[in-house]
Amino acid sequence: MMKRVMLTVAYDGTNYSGWQLQPNAETIESVLNRCLSELTGEEIAVIGASRTDAGVHARGNIAVFDTRSRIPGDKFSYALNQRLPEDIRICGSKEVSPDFHPRHCESRKTYEYRIYCAPFPMPTKRLYSYFTYVPLDIDLMSQAAAYLVGEHDFKSFCSVQTQVRMTVRQVDEVQVYRDHDEIVIRVSGRGFLYNMVRIMAGTLLEVGRGQIAPGKVAEILAARNREMAGPTAPACGLTLMGYEFMTEESNEDNSRQTLQSYQGE
Amino acid sequence: MMKRVMLTVAYDGTNYSGWQLQPNAETIESVLNRCLSELTGEEIAVIGASRTDAGVHARGNIAVFDTRSRIPGDKFSYALNQRLPEDIRICGSKEVSPDFHPRHCESRKTYEYRIYCAPFPMPTKRLYSYFTYVPLDIDLMSQAAAYLVGEHDFKSFCSVQTQVRMTVRQVDEVQVYRDHDEIVIRVSGRGFLYNMVRIMAGTLLEVGRGQIAPGKVAEILAARNREMAGPTAPACGLTLMGYEFMTEESNEDNSRQTLQSYQGE
Repeated sequence: MMKRVMLTVAYDGTNYSGWQLQPNAETIESVLNRCLSELTGEEIAVIGASRTDAGVHARGNIAVFDTRSRIPGDKFSYALNQRLPEDIRICGSKEVSPDFHPRHCESRKTYEYRIYCAPFPMPTKRLYSYFTYVPLDIDLMSQAAAYLVGEHDFKSFCSVQTQVRMTVRQVDEVQVYRDHDEIVIRVSGRGFLYNMVRIMAGTLLEVGRGQIAPGKVAEILAARNREMAGPTAPACGLTLMGYEFMTEESNEDNSRQTLQSYQGE
Repeated sequence: MMKRVMLTVAYDGTNYSGWQLQPNAETIESVLNRCLSELTGEEIAVIGASRTDAGVHARGNIAVFDTRSRIPGDKFSYALNQRLPEDIRICGSKEVSPDFHPRHCESRKTYEYRIYCAPFPMPTKRLYSYFTYVPLDIDLMSQAAAYLVGEHDFKSFCSVQTQVRMTVRQVDEVQVYRDHDEIVIRVSGRGFLYNMVRIMAGTLLEVGRGQIAPGKVAEILAARNREMAGPTAPACGLTLMGYEFMTEESNEDNSRQTLQSYQGE
């Protein structure tokens, strides 16, 4: 019998050309499809919640797929991790309703953008944060961040490479704080435009350096013009932390559940 | 005129066969010698403070070298970073006394051993921490750690591959604490035996899992027998954090000093 399985997927994006299938390039989606097809003997094509860019990392991206396999939904994490490369891990799996689609249901997702701000780059941070030696003013960045919270037209924070008509989005939270020697920009919201978080980060970086006044962010939003905002911050600093779905069914703690079945074996 | 220059060296040890020169292998020492020789036109051979193992990382290892170059001591960091690969960075450089030898003077060094303890490994942590899905009891680990502080014969915590006669060492501090989703073992002391910190970590891991009682650590020390202690924990979890030298001259904050000259250019 056919069932739909949801995976919580963590990855180090360094060595991949992003999530989405591409000819002649290794992507997260292509690796998942290949490993799932080998495992089940079916031809599996996953549907991803977020098609992250090349170099972007994830702790909790979501993928679903349909299968007739007799492997129980909650055992796919364990079975798949045996086949996946070390830089992709399944942190949870479970059966969901056959009509659950991770991009067509209401959800909230959280990103972190990490900045390592020091005299010299730290080699062990280079793949997972953006380095700058210019000191940043976190207070100014926090003031600017407050203007981004709420329902706004984020056209100024959308890559001109995409042709979306609706550019209004709801941002629930933008926090800027220090975590040891890194500055973290944590953003939660219901859907984001293409490159939106990286353009927000690039703009807040200019605020932190004193090149843009915090209040200017309101003007940038009002302008609805990509050229008004700061540059798109580099991909390596960005991590998709996780999803919350508004449907109750798919919103349990996958990892915890999977821990139990894993340790029971 | 000949002068001696001290470098503070940070590196991601993942892609190197450790610090020390080896035939047919890329090491931190070989890369530093090559880049310094190219930069100065002399044949430079650095002296390292700590000859870290393959896969071990550093935030503040120390190297000194002699040169007739007219580059001022504090400018070497900037000049070298232009030539070094991204996974090796010089965080500070300065001229020191010609008789300063980083292994023959009194010093204190600090290591961190990081453990990522969760149901599944996190891809972005895999190169810089040791993963275990077995829950660890930090209180038990802290109790055990206390037995390791002080002047002891650490023969049980020394790889049998080395033939040192004097196995008494002074450990100043062993702390075990949680840092977000990692458990950190932070060790400071004046000199360590071969693999000593990794064997301490491997032993504390067994304590955390409930396989060794904390009080047993006193017996392990007294036994002076490597087989009594836990296994050598994997290299990737270990980072040499930094050095303090007891001679006043070489003990300034290199990074801060170098930031100023770097930004002034």
